[in-house]
Amino acid sequence: MNKEIKIGLLGAGNVGGGVILVLKNNAIEIEKRVGMPVRIIKVLARHPENVKELDPSLAVTDNVDDIINDPEIDIIIELIGREDPAKDYIASALAAKKNVITANKDILAKYGKELFALAEENNVDFMFEAAVAGGIPIIRPLKSCLAANRINSIMGIINGTTNYMLSKMASDHVDFQEVLQEAQALGYAESDPTADIGGLDAARKLVILASIAFNTRITLDDVYIEGIENLTLRDIEYAEELGYVVKLLAIAKNSAENGISVRVHPTMLPKVHPLATVNDVYNAIYVNGDIVGDAMFLGRGAGRLPTASAVCGDVVDVARNIVHNCTGRINCTCYEDKHLCSIENITSPCFVRLLVLDKPGVLAAIASAFGAQNVSLKNVVQKSTVEGFSELVVVTYDVSEYNLRMALATLSGLPVVEKICSVIRVEDASLE
Amino acid sequence: MNKEIKIGLLGAGNVGGGVILVLKNNAIEIEKRVGMPVRIIKVLARHPENVKELDPSLAVTDNVDDIINDPEIDIIIELIGREDPAKDYIASALAAKKNVITANKDILAKYGKELFALAEENNVDFMFEAAVAGGIPIIRPLKSCLAANRINSIMGIINGTTNYMLSKMASDHVDFQEVLQEAQALGYAESDPTADIGGLDAARKLVILASIAFNTRITLDDVYIEGIENLTLRDIEYAEELGYVVKLLAIAKNSAENGISVRVHPTMLPKVHPLATVNDVYNAIYVNGDIVGDAMFLGRGAGRLPTASAVCGDVVDVARNIVHNCTGRINCTCYEDKHLCSIENITSPCFVRLLVLDKPGVLAAIASAFGAQNVSLKNVVQKSTVEGFSELVVVTYDVSEYNLRMALATLSGLPVVEKICSVIRVEDASLE
Repeated sequence: MNKEIKIGLLGAGNVGGGVILVLKNNAIEIEKRVGMPVRIIKVLARHPENVKELDPSLAVTDNVDDIINDPEIDIIIELIGREDPAKDYIASALAAKKNVITANKDILAKYGKELFALAEENNVDFMFEAAVAGGIPIIRPLKSCLAANRINSIMGIINGTTNYMLSKMASDHVDFQEVLQEAQALGYAESDPTADIGGLDAARKLVILASIAFNTRITLDDVYIEGIENLTLRDIEYAEELGYVVKLLAIAKNSAENGISVRVHPTMLPKVHPLATVNDVYNAIYVNGDIVGDAMFLGRGAGRLPTASAVCGDVVDVARNIVHNCTGRINCTCYEDKHLCSIENITSPCFVRLLVLDKPGVLAAIASAFGAQNVSLKNVVQKSTVEGFSELVVVTYDVSEYNLRMALATLSGLPVVEKICSVIRVEDASLE
Repeated sequence: MNKEIKIGLLGAGNVGGGVILVLKNNAIEIEKRVGMPVRIIKVLARHPENVKELDPSLAVTDNVDDIINDPEIDIIIELIGREDPAKDYIASALAAKKNVITANKDILAKYGKELFALAEENNVDFMFEAAVAGGIPIIRPLKSCLAANRINSIMGIINGTTNYMLSKMASDHVDFQEVLQEAQALGYAESDPTADIGGLDAARKLVILASIAFNTRITLDDVYIEGIENLTLRDIEYAEELGYVVKLLAIAKNSAENGISVRVHPTMLPKVHPLATVNDVYNAIYVNGDIVGDAMFLGRGAGRLPTASAVCGDVVDVARNIVHNCTGRINCTCYEDKHLCSIENITSPCFVRLLVLDKPGVLAAIASAFGAQNVSLKNVVQKSTVEGFSELVVVTYDVSEYNLRMALATLSGLPVVEKICSVIRVEDASLE
């Protein structure tokens, strides 16, 4: 029987350092909540001096086997990041019957199935609350609190960089490039911001959320991804005029008819939608369940301490399981194999901005191109621009991706259409 | 070793009926999540025909002992409501080593300590996610996900009736009495709405939240309560003009200096605060922790299915504990005895509306009455009203309740002050 819970920490960078501080500073509270002391005893780190600065009592090693093979260690926290060698470390730790906590979304999105199987085989916990939306409790609510629901949909603002950028474009009326430079200067965007602005980071998190919500394994290849690179201030201003805001949403839906769809793309949301008011680096996840209805979880999606909060919440949970001899209590919940909806069948309203010739009959030609695909128009805004051209914005009612593409192909062939400037999906479903 | 989890249900009214439906309709999902079937076998109800209509397979009894003494039953769900006889039933069930799930906030707020001790003694689970804010997962996030945090504050919109009424007053510009009648007609307010509009319902829920957040037993007597009965449309319109909305907030704060304060009162919140956009019957709980920073949980705070979602989430959790032989894994978390802040020491900005004589020097007299109590003024709005009078609205910077009362006493004695119309606290702390 344990008298205290001992932890090995892999990686003492930004979040790892935060975890060291939290477990030290809040040790008394955590001991009371768990029922026995919980402490890190060994850290894998390249720079021992950084670890010693945070907590001089910690042993530091540069050999991961010193931690994985230490029979005293109950929990291993992986905060190295990236795939290699973190994935092998996690697999070895689980095989050595260590409970594992990670914040590594890349590994979960790619190797989740294999690692959960290993955890189950070895009857240990494998937890990852910090991998999605930093400090926001969402994994445990999905796996426990909402466990009596069939989840219908999840919509999330789960990338802080892009949310900061979109909020700034809207509030300060600045264009994409300018706000990107500002975000980089503030450290909100990396020097290579591709994974954030291209939607890949959000897609990785969505893969994890959707797999849990729908109890079926979703992979990155299943996700339709569109980033915010091509969004212009002009679109954001039209959105404002029409009562919408533009967010990079990660959307997972389970439709009885068409199966599961997972996608990340810029989305227009009605201003009154709770997600529409989530600004700056805040993240939020909006869930619809068949029983609970709508629920939203909001908080800081990244950062040293919020992420450490989620990691240490997992520590408390695993530690309670160790105390009560019930590790492996909840493991992989992907016990189904559900049908995926093809992108062509995904349906939503759509915003289309066109540059057209400024002459009579143009609107009729465009409306009939949509009409031929059974697409009705909800809003039309027409504004004269430079000589001879006008800008035409339409918001359609529900249209399938297939019909939309057909309509756009027809439009681009019309002599009156100079250019299709932008196409942005709309989510109209609001609180009911 | 169990082969299935058997439940006894006490009460088959609105929420009880919902629980019967959820456990029947989502039985396959729940079985997969738990690892074995979970079903109700016996129901305590006065009208067997109502139960049979929902699920003809259920046995119905009018004698609670048939359930409490049934050795086959693992979990008892109490959904009778009120104190008597529900409290005795819960105590007897725990003493008989049954795991208990309840949605009964009155009993938790009043007898929590005694019942948690009983649960601990008998090594069984006692869960109550549904008792606060219906379908919104908040108890489990506080006890687990945020378990590495010291919670600094909780602010909640946790009464749907009053939130509906305040939203309507603001959006439709109607007065309190009119909107109350409308809420009663829609079934959002009871025919005797005292507990809702007087703040008592919110206070009971706050007692539960604050006890968990601060790990110390808070009782109803500790809560300073002010309802919305005296709120006028005029105050709500001034709030709008000054950039605020008015909400009935339940606020619990832990200040290192002054101790714990718990209060329910109408509060002005900046329009940009995430809680300010929570309208109609929606509830939301805004938490600040020392590590996670700000987080918010939003959803339906009442209603048959949202409440049943929370009850059945508890069912899944208890059932997993039974399967893994670890009931009693998390019990009472009130292991401290913290100091309570007296109401006089509570500090916040404040909105005051006065009717004053419309003549020179009035503002100076009023400002100096505040100044004598070291209260600075942040905003002043003065409007002429009926002959000889004008309406003066001030928003102060932070002021303690003590200084505020002293200032108000001075003001009411001034010959230029005709009437102090309203005093409403302001929460200025916003997302940082």
